[in-house]
Amino acid sequence: MSAAKPNQIESFYQEAEAKHLIPLWKVTAKLLPPEPQTKVLPYLWKWSDLRRMAYRAGDLVPIERGGERRVLAFVNPGLEGKYAATHTLWGAVQIVLPGEIAPCHRHSASAIRFIIEGSRSFTNVDGDKCVMSRGDLVLTPNWSWHDHGNESDQAMIWMDGLDLPLVNDLDGIFFEPYPQHKHPVTQVNGSEQKYGGAHLKPTWENPPATRSPLLNYKWEPTYDALKRIGEGPASPFDDVCFEYLNPNTGGPTLPTMSCCVQLIRPGVHTQAHRQVNSAVYHVFEGRGHAVINGQRFDWERGDFFVVPPWAWHEFANESKEEVILFSVQDTPVMQALGLYREEAYTENGGRQQVSGSFGG
Amino acid sequence: MSAAKPNQIESFYQEAEAKHLIPLWKVTAKLLPPEPQTKVLPYLWKWSDLRRMAYRAGDLVPIERGGERRVLAFVNPGLEGKYAATHTLWGAVQIVLPGEIAPCHRHSASAIRFIIEGSRSFTNVDGDKCVMSRGDLVLTPNWSWHDHGNESDQAMIWMDGLDLPLVNDLDGIFFEPYPQHKHPVTQVNGSEQKYGGAHLKPTWENPPATRSPLLNYKWEPTYDALKRIGEGPASPFDDVCFEYLNPNTGGPTLPTMSCCVQLIRPGVHTQAHRQVNSAVYHVFEGRGHAVINGQRFDWERGDFFVVPPWAWHEFANESKEEVILFSVQDTPVMQALGLYREEAYTENGGRQQVSGSFGG
Amino acid sequence: MSAAKPNQIESFYQEAEAKHLIPLWKVTAKLLPPEPQTKVLPYLWKWSDLRRMAYRAGDLVPIERGGERRVLAFVNPGLEGKYAATHTLWGAVQIVLPGEIAPCHRHSASAIRFIIEGSRSFTNVDGDKCVMSRGDLVLTPNWSWHDHGNESDQAMIWMDGLDLPLVNDLDGIFFEPYPQHKHPVTQVNGSEQKYGGAHLKPTWENPPATRSPLLNYKWEPTYDALKRIGEGPASPFDDVCFEYLNPNTGGPTLPTMSCCVQLIRPGVHTQAHRQVNSAVYHVFEGRGHAVINGQRFDWERGDFFVVPPWAWHEFANESKEEVILFSVQDTPVMQALGLYREEAYTENGGRQQVSGSFGG
Amino acid sequence: MSAAKPNQIESFYQEAEAKHLIPLWKVTAKLLPPEPQTKVLPYLWKWSDLRRMAYRAGDLVPIERGGERRVLAFVNPGLEGKYAATHTLWGAVQIVLPGEIAPCHRHSASAIRFIIEGSRSFTNVDGDKCVMSRGDLVLTPNWSWHDHGNESDQAMIWMDGLDLPLVNDLDGIFFEPYPQHKHPVTQVNGSEQKYGGAHLKPTWENPPATRSPLLNYKWEPTYDALKRIGEGPASPFDDVCFEYLNPNTGGPTLPTMSCCVQLIRPGVHTQAHRQVNSAVYHVFEGRGHAVINGQRFDWERGDFFVVPPWAWHEFANESKEEVILFSVQDTPVMQALGLYREEAYTENGGRQQVSGSFGG
Repeated sequence: MSAAKPNQIESFYQEAEAKHLIPLWKVTAKLLPPEPQTKVLPYLWKWSDLRRMAYRAGDLVPIERGGERRVLAFVNPGLEGKYAATHTLWGAVQIVLPGEIAPCHRHSASAIRFIIEGSRSFTNVDGDKCVMSRGDLVLTPNWSWHDHGNESDQAMIWMDGLDLPLVNDLDGIFFEPYPQHKHPVTQVNGSEQKYGGAHLKPTWENPPATRSPLLNYKWEPTYDALKRIGEGPASPFDDVCFEYLNPNTGGPTLPTMSCCVQLIRPGVHTQAHRQVNSAVYHVFEGRGHAVINGQRFDWERGDFFVVPPWAWHEFANESKEEVILFSVQDTPVMQALGLYREEAYTENGGRQQVSGSFGG
Repeated sequence: MSAAKPNQIESFYQEAEAKHLIPLWKVTAKLLPPEPQTKVLPYLWKWSDLRRMAYRAGDLVPIERGGERRVLAFVNPGLEGKYAATHTLWGAVQIVLPGEIAPCHRHSASAIRFIIEGSRSFTNVDGDKCVMSRGDLVLTPNWSWHDHGNESDQAMIWMDGLDLPLVNDLDGIFFEPYPQHKHPVTQVNGSEQKYGGAHLKPTWENPPATRSPLLNYKWEPTYDALKRIGEGPASPFDDVCFEYLNPNTGGPTLPTMSCCVQLIRPGVHTQAHRQVNSAVYHVFEGRGHAVINGQRFDWERGDFFVVPPWAWHEFANESKEEVILFSVQDTPVMQALGLYREEAYTENGGRQQVSGSFGG
Repeated sequence: MSAAKPNQIESFYQEAEAKHLIPLWKVTAKLLPPEPQTKVLPYLWKWSDLRRMAYRAGDLVPIERGGERRVLAFVNPGLEGKYAATHTLWGAVQIVLPGEIAPCHRHSASAIRFIIEGSRSFTNVDGDKCVMSRGDLVLTPNWSWHDHGNESDQAMIWMDGLDLPLVNDLDGIFFEPYPQHKHPVTQVNGSEQKYGGAHLKPTWENPPATRSPLLNYKWEPTYDALKRIGEGPASPFDDVCFEYLNPNTGGPTLPTMSCCVQLIRPGVHTQAHRQVNSAVYHVFEGRGHAVINGQRFDWERGDFFVVPPWAWHEFANESKEEVILFSVQDTPVMQALGLYREEAYTENGGRQQVSGSFGG
Repeated sequence: MSAAKPNQIESFYQEAEAKHLIPLWKVTAKLLPPEPQTKVLPYLWKWSDLRRMAYRAGDLVPIERGGERRVLAFVNPGLEGKYAATHTLWGAVQIVLPGEIAPCHRHSASAIRFIIEGSRSFTNVDGDKCVMSRGDLVLTPNWSWHDHGNESDQAMIWMDGLDLPLVNDLDGIFFEPYPQHKHPVTQVNGSEQKYGGAHLKPTWENPPATRSPLLNYKWEPTYDALKRIGEGPASPFDDVCFEYLNPNTGGPTLPTMSCCVQLIRPGVHTQAHRQVNSAVYHVFEGRGHAVINGQRFDWERGDFFVVPPWAWHEFANESKEEVILFSVQDTPVMQALGLYREEAYTENGGRQQVSGSFGG
């Protein structure tokens, strides 16, 4: 190998570019940083804004085919040009007014709803009318037909969580409107009747392995589980934190999104850790704060916030009331692809690997 | 091949026997019948006998090391010389008197308890003290230390279900007494606190994949699940029948035994079917009858009965009260080994394969 | 609890027996021994006997419907009344004369053949004609139609390995003769063509998950693999020992039987260990000996021997030629049911757990 | 809901933007198209360019820490600003000159090498020195240390395939240089010795479940498998196409990338289909063409081309010589996340779903 003259190299680079080639050695530092260099920023959306604007949208805009849903979605300030709460997750609030029905459609993105306000609304998932109240978690797995309706006399607001940014980045989006506005109802709370029981499955059903047979995770048993721990030990990082399960597999609710509910008991200030996954949090009850990469976010009931990938984060509840957080996390994606990693923050500022598919 | 003279064949057979060989063609019909030729017989044990004799045993016999447990086990009349309810399953009633503790031990056979009478007794499983009441299902998986105690002022009776005959046939039995009479208690109802919640798992635990992290399936949520079906459709063969799940896998409670609880609603008479697995049933509530291979068995609260492998069976509840059956089944064995098969009985006496790992 | 008088106890025992009940405390020591108390004995069958008697059977007995196969099966001397090489495994030699076809049938027991003598014979498995030569391993999974034929001018002898004793003990035997003597041939060596390649699977096939898509594991690549290790390190217990895989799962060839081939290099004397599974060994090449529970068995090419469950065993090759053993093991059964356990023998006579689903 | 005046809506939109919110109904058509709207373009890189420029890079640029590798990577013309062959896959050629060693490092992206030119070079994967020749496929799974060296007197060129764009989009990149330039060698061709055998695994190894224990898939048995099909039927879309397997799982070589090798027999023109995954193809032998979304690409030995997601594509070999294509595909990602879908092109221009986790 002879010593190259600068102009020889430069002309080589020009030819490479012309041939649609990039020399790795020019971009190694950018492509292979020691740790993830995410553009996702931590951010907080206030419930006072979200609720007011949701109702305002109810005044201004109908729910129609084409627009499909009256949804206000979080746009991460770090992700310009992309409509996403994090690089992989869509988070939003949706409002349905009394008597409205959001038209039936299906898509290859999966979705969850977590109900914030109202009752006697429903999501009809492939004909199973799931009746929803505050605190319920309702799934519309990948490619399932779904419409939403409100049969009460109050507006209904819920959180939407979707893997839409991920599925779009993977060039995997398919969408199809249902021929009619509504899907016929074949059962009411069918999945809940059959799979809502604790650790039981009906022997007369053969549900598909690829999606959870339970579509509506009701709030009451969820809250019972949170309270059952009492004063007992829990996670140093998340306090009393439970993951919702697919009862057929013991795995996450959806192949792309894990849902978690956590109780931060009064007086608890958790230890910081960081995980390679990202998350969208909803403050279901109480008030407290999170410290994310050194920045403090004070939140209260109804607020939403985002934890970026590989960001140190800790939670504090300095009040005398319980704090309950609901979150959607892209953990299953990182785990399925062998990319999951987690580290604990130690007192002296050091790191300690907690778990992961690779590392150490 | 020349025509063989009889005495040539006979001397060949004699030599074969002397060399510890058997010509298959002499025993083909015996070894390869068209369908299973089980020795297991259907049989019914009456609660009036069982309860009386359990109390009598309480009078006569202490619980001691060596004997280990005050247990009366079902001996299937078809299985002479074998202590077993079916070819694979052990079924029994066990009584513990107030203040007694059955000494701690472990074995490679797995066990379940289903509580019939009493409360404030416990099974301590590897240090987790599981407090038990009527209707609870408590697991002691393979090789877990366990002792049983009764802290109430009433005798406690439960059903024992074990895979002991199977594990013995497989030459897989190991047994070890704990050095002390009791195992130290490290938590009380710990598994229930953490895994008893509906379709939730604590994120701060990493339970072993090989056993259920939930050890005590409480009766109340179980009964709720049975009732939730209401008038809805259920199994044509078993009416409202649920299988207990390992919440980490969605699979059966134990690798060798599936536990089921079923509600036969008033007026229901199920369709007959047969399955290659066997089962031990306990009548938890109500009265009714089963027809097993054409023989009628009338049972009432507390009774036990056995359904042999590949036996046609149907259930009837002609009363106005609900019937609840609990059962232990060796289905997971047959499924894991690719041997599961099931057939429905059709009106004209024909058969129709329902499902199975092989066939049709 | 009062002190019981002997005759009270005795009459209690009599009533228990009459009611088909057994008090556990009377049989605890028998049912729950510290370690498996198998009846299976180690035993050696000589090839000189087996071959001679196989040819003699060829002279004396035709292959006919009803008898189905000209097979001489090993009868373990410890298992009186049972036709079995071990408690779970059937081992045998089968002979097919030039021009003969053993009639087509299927059964719920799974089978393997390992070819000892001859070539240009075949097993037709569900229409795929697998042509067989010395050293080939051919599967007839659970419920697959199969007939065997010999198109050469020499007798053909192979080893049969089946899970027949296990499936019979589990009351899971089904058997069905094919309506015709032979099954139509739809492909020749089809599975080998498509799945015989090293670590490749054809993208145009969707084989069933429940059985290996490869039916014929040819000898040549098997031998190559054994030799490839050369002087390298291997198992202290089995020297160069490979397990045959289902290429679709990386698991054993069949859900009930693992097949292994092992090279014991000249001069190697392995360390003893014991495993909870049993095995039937065939001496494919060479001469050597095994020490099984302290008893020495000298074997040479063609011989068969049995290692009982939980029996200490070691292998020695004191010759200058290579020893190759083929074996069928019931390991997958014990593993699937959470019962696998293994211990190494240490110099001072102690034990050291090596691995297992449960234990220490 | 009242009729909204335009300026009310406009001010609503302005507030939404200020609050980092996006109304879904404004962007539904963009976010939820009927089918994937990929930016990835089909493209062809010529071997004559690639080889010449690789050698030129050898003249101009050393292999050094920081730059790490002498690699020329494909830049898809549709993905401006992104260094990627497709949205998820990195494809490149790498050259190592005689005596050079590319320094040891590891990263959370997984990589494969497919050898094009040369022999007696190696990749050292966690201490296992894998010696490489033309046609070999070598894996460096996720987070494994690896350095590359060339011990011959000829330059060595191979194809690199990585999931780098995907892992970057998922914010999952970690990178670490090894403290020394080279990793110590602990074995030579160790994985090949132990796992290279056809459908056999060594019983004395316990490889991690999360990565393939085989690191070097040699060319000779691969080619044998391709040829073994002969005139037999194969895939209508890909002709004789095999996927490389992880011998421990029967699954793809890596959790993010499937590798395939395919033989297009002389005279074959395949049927078009489309799949939701993308692929980078290398023309290992022969000449032919592909039609991708209606555009014809003529290629010959050494060329590379890209098939975008959900693009109709077909292959033709109009020569009398065999065509062999090697490809890297992101199929496992789409399958793991429940997003896989495939359609066949039918004569009348219609579509027919072939398979998929969802759909129809």
